[in-house]
Amino acid sequence: MNHTSANKNRKIEVCLSPSLLHLYPVKDSIVVVIDIFRATSSICYGIDNGATAIIPVDSVEACARYANKGYLLAAERNGEVVQGYDFGNSPYAYTKEKVAKQTIVLTTTNGTTAIQSAKDAKKIIIGSFLNLDSICHWLSEQTHDVLLLCSGWKNNFNLEDTLFAGAVVHQLENEFQSYCDASVAAKDLYVLAQNDVRTYLKKSSHNKRLQELNIEDDILFCLQKNITHSIPVLQGERLVKMARD
Amino acid sequence: MNHTSANKNRKIEVCLSPSLLHLYPVKDSIVVVIDIFRATSSICYGIDNGATAIIPVDSVEACARYANKGYLLAAERNGEVVQGYDFGNSPYAYTKEKVAKQTIVLTTTNGTTAIQSAKDAKKIIIGSFLNLDSICHWLSEQTHDVLLLCSGWKNNFNLEDTLFAGAVVHQLENEFQSYCDASVAAKDLYVLAQNDVRTYLKKSSHNKRLQELNIEDDILFCLQKNITHSIPVLQGERLVKMARD
Repeated sequence: MNHTSANKNRKIEVCLSPSLLHLYPVKDSIVVVIDIFRATSSICYGIDNGATAIIPVDSVEACARYANKGYLLAAERNGEVVQGYDFGNSPYAYTKEKVAKQTIVLTTTNGTTAIQSAKDAKKIIIGSFLNLDSICHWLSEQTHDVLLLCSGWKNNFNLEDTLFAGAVVHQLENEFQSYCDASVAAKDLYVLAQNDVRTYLKKSSHNKRLQELNIEDDILFCLQKNITHSIPVLQGERLVKMARD
Repeated sequence: MNHTSANKNRKIEVCLSPSLLHLYPVKDSIVVVIDIFRATSSICYGIDNGATAIIPVDSVEACARYANKGYLLAAERNGEVVQGYDFGNSPYAYTKEKVAKQTIVLTTTNGTTAIQSAKDAKKIIIGSFLNLDSICHWLSEQTHDVLLLCSGWKNNFNLEDTLFAGAVVHQLENEFQSYCDASVAAKDLYVLAQNDVRTYLKKSSHNKRLQELNIEDDILFCLQKNITHSIPVLQGERLVKMARD
């Protein structure tokens, strides 16, 4: 894909885990938060389906404070819906019927924590395979450096977030002047996996954890490319649909 | 390569940066410390060339405290020999002529700090392409889990250490029951790069930093496979040649 380049001196970098975020120039960057299974995929889907806003919070307790105020409350820990909550982070809970015109308060094991950790960024947007092309197109038109932040699993590296970061680097590499070791790795892994990402992900132990959660439908859903076009952006404490021309 | 397997329930894991080490079961693992450019390559070469011991310390000040006691003092920061020290971490400083029967006190930007950070491990050994097969053969005969610790660059991910970790996983994957997302990534990157690791590494920005250091001879030296057979092991505060049958 070719985009019009706004600034070829921009850098694109991949942060492989929130534990490494202090090593990056967050304040000077547009940060794309990535948690493919499943927080950022569900956020993209929910915003595209007309949710008014999604408020990411970093604890179940913080989520509980929004009870009885007209919000939908969504809480996930270790892959499962927390007892007593409307839903967790399955994308199937973020359909038009369920979320249109609603505001959702969401806490998840990895993704919402990553969003909080990047709060000093110039701008925070939410990426997933669902809105891959929209994200890349928009980034190509910006002038700032880009940091792709993989939420990982409990602060460690994971493959699915890295592959998505690699997909973005793959589309944008000719428009950024330099890219880091992690970008090279992410891109090459994506190129290796791109023809069948689901099968590729089955190689690791982490996949067994995913299988035990019995979320295969969710996984296949989250690996679909470009079924949404909205870009969720953080405004204050709320993720909303970015207004674009 | 086929090794006799001592315990197929063992795990092999790759820690992509010392910043992630707290996420791993260090105490229960044999840790292989990896800093390809250039600390662990030079340690392997120096021990193989008959150095009595190499004492890794985590600061230039700690290194200075060994002055005038009959040790060789080696200090590197940001890729260069620290002023006033006998040498830094170029493997060419660790020849037989220079190090046989000597004890060296060494501090480097990344590698020696990584050794210190893993000091609770069941055992710490030093890996590099120079002793790849020896490391793999020895690990295959152990019963404990294995953690391959990439020193990285200033606590972040780097490609060269990851590729070496991937080379070890590639040799040993059939002898360990499970392996983590980082192991999958490291191994696949190694397989991609193995025919010409030097050219592969030229893809990233980090490589420019290496080129500016004018250490191309060192780099090519450090990418040679199996020119040494010793395994440096930490005993107390000293890295010595492991006694093997």
